[in-house]
Amino acid sequence: MISYAEALEKILKESRSYASEEIELKEAFGRVLSEDIYADRDYPPFHRSAMDGFAILSRDYLPNQNYSYHRELSAGKSMDLEPEEKTIRIMTGAPVPEGFDVVIKIEDTVLSESNGQKIVTFSLKDVKPWQNIAKQGEDLKKGDLVLSKGVGLGTSEVSILASLGKNKLAVVKPPKVHIISTGNEVVPVYTSPLPYQIRDSNSYTVSSILSKYKIQPELVTHVPDSESEITNQIQQGLEADILILSGGVSMGSLDLVPAVLQKLGVELIFHKTAIKPGKPIWFGKRKNTIVFGMPGNPFSVQTCSRIFLEPFLRKSFGQNQIPTYKLPYSTTKQKKGLFTEFFPVRLETTDKTYLSPLTFNGSGDVRAGITSDGLAIFPSETSSIQKEDLVQFLPW
Amino acid sequence: MISYAEALEKILKESRSYASEEIELKEAFGRVLSEDIYADRDYPPFHRSAMDGFAILSRDYLPNQNYSYHRELSAGKSMDLEPEEKTIRIMTGAPVPEGFDVVIKIEDTVLSESNGQKIVTFSLKDVKPWQNIAKQGEDLKKGDLVLSKGVGLGTSEVSILASLGKNKLAVVKPPKVHIISTGNEVVPVYTSPLPYQIRDSNSYTVSSILSKYKIQPELVTHVPDSESEITNQIQQGLEADILILSGGVSMGSLDLVPAVLQKLGVELIFHKTAIKPGKPIWFGKRKNTIVFGMPGNPFSVQTCSRIFLEPFLRKSFGQNQIPTYKLPYSTTKQKKGLFTEFFPVRLETTDKTYLSPLTFNGSGDVRAGITSDGLAIFPSETSSIQKEDLVQFLPW
Repeated sequence: MISYAEALEKILKESRSYASEEIELKEAFGRVLSEDIYADRDYPPFHRSAMDGFAILSRDYLPNQNYSYHRELSAGKSMDLEPEEKTIRIMTGAPVPEGFDVVIKIEDTVLSESNGQKIVTFSLKDVKPWQNIAKQGEDLKKGDLVLSKGVGLGTSEVSILASLGKNKLAVVKPPKVHIISTGNEVVPVYTSPLPYQIRDSNSYTVSSILSKYKIQPELVTHVPDSESEITNQIQQGLEADILILSGGVSMGSLDLVPAVLQKLGVELIFHKTAIKPGKPIWFGKRKNTIVFGMPGNPFSVQTCSRIFLEPFLRKSFGQNQIPTYKLPYSTTKQKKGLFTEFFPVRLETTDKTYLSPLTFNGSGDVRAGITSDGLAIFPSETSSIQKEDLVQFLPW
Repeated sequence: MISYAEALEKILKESRSYASEEIELKEAFGRVLSEDIYADRDYPPFHRSAMDGFAILSRDYLPNQNYSYHRELSAGKSMDLEPEEKTIRIMTGAPVPEGFDVVIKIEDTVLSESNGQKIVTFSLKDVKPWQNIAKQGEDLKKGDLVLSKGVGLGTSEVSILASLGKNKLAVVKPPKVHIISTGNEVVPVYTSPLPYQIRDSNSYTVSSILSKYKIQPELVTHVPDSESEITNQIQQGLEADILILSGGVSMGSLDLVPAVLQKLGVELIFHKTAIKPGKPIWFGKRKNTIVFGMPGNPFSVQTCSRIFLEPFLRKSFGQNQIPTYKLPYSTTKQKKGLFTEFFPVRLETTDKTYLSPLTFNGSGDVRAGITSDGLAIFPSETSSIQKEDLVQFLPW
């Protein structure tokens, strides 16, 4: 059976490249750029006053001396200095006029009037050139690469795109996804199950993960363990870019999914990997369609989505992977066997931030993952984790 | 000037309680529960086989002995044992019939046939009662509280709500929000600014933060620094639950927002707090409307949104605050003064996970925050951070 690392590598090797689409900036939060973004001008575009106060030339500065002034410059306007004009009142965001190189905060000034003449004196012992001024181009030069293709757009990225005037931008177009849950025991969420039935949670799980990537699945459906019904539904699903199945991939006599997939010409890339939960996962492709056959237990689907589906999507979107963190563990944990195990943890902070386990009865536990911050990885070759050991952490 | 802690306390003290609304489960990801959720039945609802294999009674078990069998039970069906029926083939997810208490994995069996009779022998030396069976109610008992009011719905929470049949559920109804950016220098994103103008990024920043809380602002607009225009727009904004302004709250002669707010009867709760960036923030209320007057610099708005607006929303939604983590710092950093400072950091993992600073030219830096994972806090009373020091971290 292949290892977790091998399984992930095989999945990433099959990454696709999806089309891009143009959207408006106000729809951009959470999307992934599919164009490089360059600075349209210098930022700041001018020597910008960073304070409300007075502009002056550092060479002319003397503490506790009277300077007369008569003009005021606010943001959004500009001004050329008059001959012999030694200082002006200036506001945050205004362009510092050519001839000045210092802004003194209003808090460091004393204002007065003498014979109808406005006077300012400064209390600072000395000043440094460019004090309280954001110099033109200090953040970005015109033409600088600001954001690269593949960057996920959070608040700071949306903010700079607005500053740069990217009212419209190219982002990755979500692929077409079909979700099929299988199983005779599975009934829709809105029904009252019979004693030996359970409700379909897996299609909701997968849809939730997809919504993080702004993917609205084209079809979400359920089929019983009937070869003809599974065949029909998979046939339709193979028209999508990604087909995600849950259930029917294990060792039972009604686990029909692998056989149907192969009968329909889907090439098997791997079946089963040495992980827990999620061991029976089936992965394959037909032409441009990628097929994830996930196991049926709810926490197996959550885990396989996080460790396999999301990395596939991110690579296909040109996006960096979510980093794996290494944080100290809050207690001890043992395992038997040589599988790589994944279990839900919370980040808990006392003197520092620890990974702390949650109650977890295994992959069929409907509670598993609730209020967790992500998954911890118990590596294959390790059989015990001690308090303070650094453990790999995958945030949700 | 009040401290960061005092400012946050004053803001949280004004938290409101918003109405709830019923939505469908498929819309629930990212919303916040406004009802308590109880288990509708035991989970598992029956003694569920966790493996594909054979069910047997532990008392009857003997290794390497022939057991004849003739029936198979798959998920979604149930079965009463026949007299003298010592074992059945059973599939993952099927209910273990009364009279059996063990499931033996198919991998630990040998199947054969003798005189048309199907025979199984087991290779395990011994078995333990309830081996490979998820016992009825081991995850949840009927009536257990599963999720409380105020829980944010991630993948695991959506998954269990589906299992529990919560096709419809009550969540917090987003409050009505108006966003007003101010400033004569500010022009819309789709225009070419004059040399001393900049584009409006703040309303996009605030809208992005709000979208994390599924709030679609009712109005997003910009006004120049004109008392009458600001007055008209704020008057309209005071009909919302939350009014968020940016710009016009500092010391400049055109910083008209505080005076207009007070003239319109908005009670000042505080103006300015000892933080950087974000010092000039103005916070107040009129009847049920909460007013955030944020400074105009882009990173000030990102910071104030994260450290003040989000905590306000979460408390008002009945949701826990995003925890503050404590992680080791990757390098050294100095500061002057007694303000609490916030700066963008990335999580970087080498031997363990560190907070690592990003280039940051201050609150007016349009790049600030790009590709960062959150904000680090430089506490007011501290003047230097050393490598390996534990630093508070606020993820975005």
